[in-house]
Amino acid sequence: MARYALKLEYDGTGYAGWQKQADHPSVQTALETALSKLEPGHAGVTAAGRTDAGVHATGQVAHVDLARPWTPFRLMEALNAHLKNTGVAVLDLAIVPDDFSARFSAVERQYLYRIINRRSPAPLEAGRVWRIGHRLDTEAMQAGANHLIGRHDFTTFRSTLCQAASPVKTLDALDVEAVPLAQGQEIRIHVRARSFLHNQVRSFVGTLARVGSGSWPPEKVAEILAARDRRACGPVSPPQGLYLAEVRYPDPVFSGFPSGDPPDPAAG
Amino acid sequence: MARYALKLEYDGTGYAGWQKQADHPSVQTALETALSKLEPGHAGVTAAGRTDAGVHATGQVAHVDLARPWTPFRLMEALNAHLKNTGVAVLDLAIVPDDFSARFSAVERQYLYRIINRRSPAPLEAGRVWRIGHRLDTEAMQAGANHLIGRHDFTTFRSTLCQAASPVKTLDALDVEAVPLAQGQEIRIHVRARSFLHNQVRSFVGTLARVGSGSWPPEKVAEILAARDRRACGPVSPPQGLYLAEVRYPDPVFSGFPSGDPPDPAAG
Repeated sequence: MARYALKLEYDGTGYAGWQKQADHPSVQTALETALSKLEPGHAGVTAAGRTDAGVHATGQVAHVDLARPWTPFRLMEALNAHLKNTGVAVLDLAIVPDDFSARFSAVERQYLYRIINRRSPAPLEAGRVWRIGHRLDTEAMQAGANHLIGRHDFTTFRSTLCQAASPVKTLDALDVEAVPLAQGQEIRIHVRARSFLHNQVRSFVGTLARVGSGSWPPEKVAEILAARDRRACGPVSPPQGLYLAEVRYPDPVFSGFPSGDPPDPAAG
Repeated sequence: MARYALKLEYDGTGYAGWQKQADHPSVQTALETALSKLEPGHAGVTAAGRTDAGVHATGQVAHVDLARPWTPFRLMEALNAHLKNTGVAVLDLAIVPDDFSARFSAVERQYLYRIINRRSPAPLEAGRVWRIGHRLDTEAMQAGANHLIGRHDFTTFRSTLCQAASPVKTLDALDVEAVPLAQGQEIRIHVRARSFLHNQVRSFVGTLARVGSGSWPPEKVAEILAARDRRACGPVSPPQGLYLAEVRYPDPVFSGFPSGDPPDPAAG
């Protein structure tokens, strides 16, 4: 028996989220089904972040225990073959210590939220971004975001369904990046914390969009944070702009197959 | 009666190409159907490039004559409303002289071809790129590409279905750009010419992929070009990596709505 860590990319469209559910397709079920082709009766996978319906990942991490020994590259290839056309792909794979947990060993989670801010629809990015037609002021958004950095009671930015024991979290970064486009701009919001409350990032983004629109001054963010009242929050932004981008651990987990080739061709 | 030029973005997936065809959905039909909602009986649209099935555009240009007067911003908005969920969007719109032709006035067409060169599938870019699993040498690809620049008989790189009067064209640029990714690289091939033969860009890319793989040395490109024989060409690359990126005219056609807002809000 050995434990394997997997780095995953997925298109969240059409999935009810990461978590296994009766009667709804989930990313977890897609991955566990592929693993069952290799080892029927495996004990299932655990992920760093339980992404919601429609939310994507470019760097989700999960772990699984398998009885049969595999070289990492070969296991990645076998899984990707069985994941064909599911919208889920394994980007990297490593053997990890038995006490490694994709969820509990994580020391940081990084999310990206993508807004296409232009008047025209964005057909080539459909299902990948939140498209907002009126001009957003990204400097005002950053000024609002700065009120959220640090350790706070984030009750305002937490879904009423959130199961976390405490609403107190430490937000390490909330950076609003503006990238000019031929028409309008792309706004990339980078968020980092050890862990997040349910709907926290999307609650931040919906609130910051309201600030960017000029409906709320940046200082309003400090006010609604201090209110510790869910009803004070801006709208929750749609899921399709959100990406779980990276999960960090005390020691680097993945060595990477940076060339796209196996580190040892003989192992493949 | 006035003539309008439209800049278009579209997702070519599911379309049989730009050109109107009996029994197959086309981008031209989608656009003409939307225009018919505004002016039944209009005389139809003409485009700069007749993109093939599955090929995308971020800067296609078309023109249309309409009897009813419109301000450009308002016409763009009305068309985008009628184009909802078609995968086609109007990015910019301008009134042009009656002798302007999106097709015949064009002095340059720019295409982009996107390759994701990594071992793992790329679910978030499905239908948007050609994914190649083995490492490609982009320096070798550029060395091969350099043999194609300039004025040549491009019979080797021309579909047997091509209807152009002459196989002689002048290729202004063929740049192979390598962008590192967390795993592997994205290869962006930028191509510029006044006009192209049918399947010319995809024939270039399929040939350069063979050079990048090491199957052919870069000098082989000069050899097959000189052969003026379609059978000497590499494979035609798949359509979903190709984008008609920009069309240029002697005078700039579009002023842009760079802020994503109308230049004159009262006009909207």
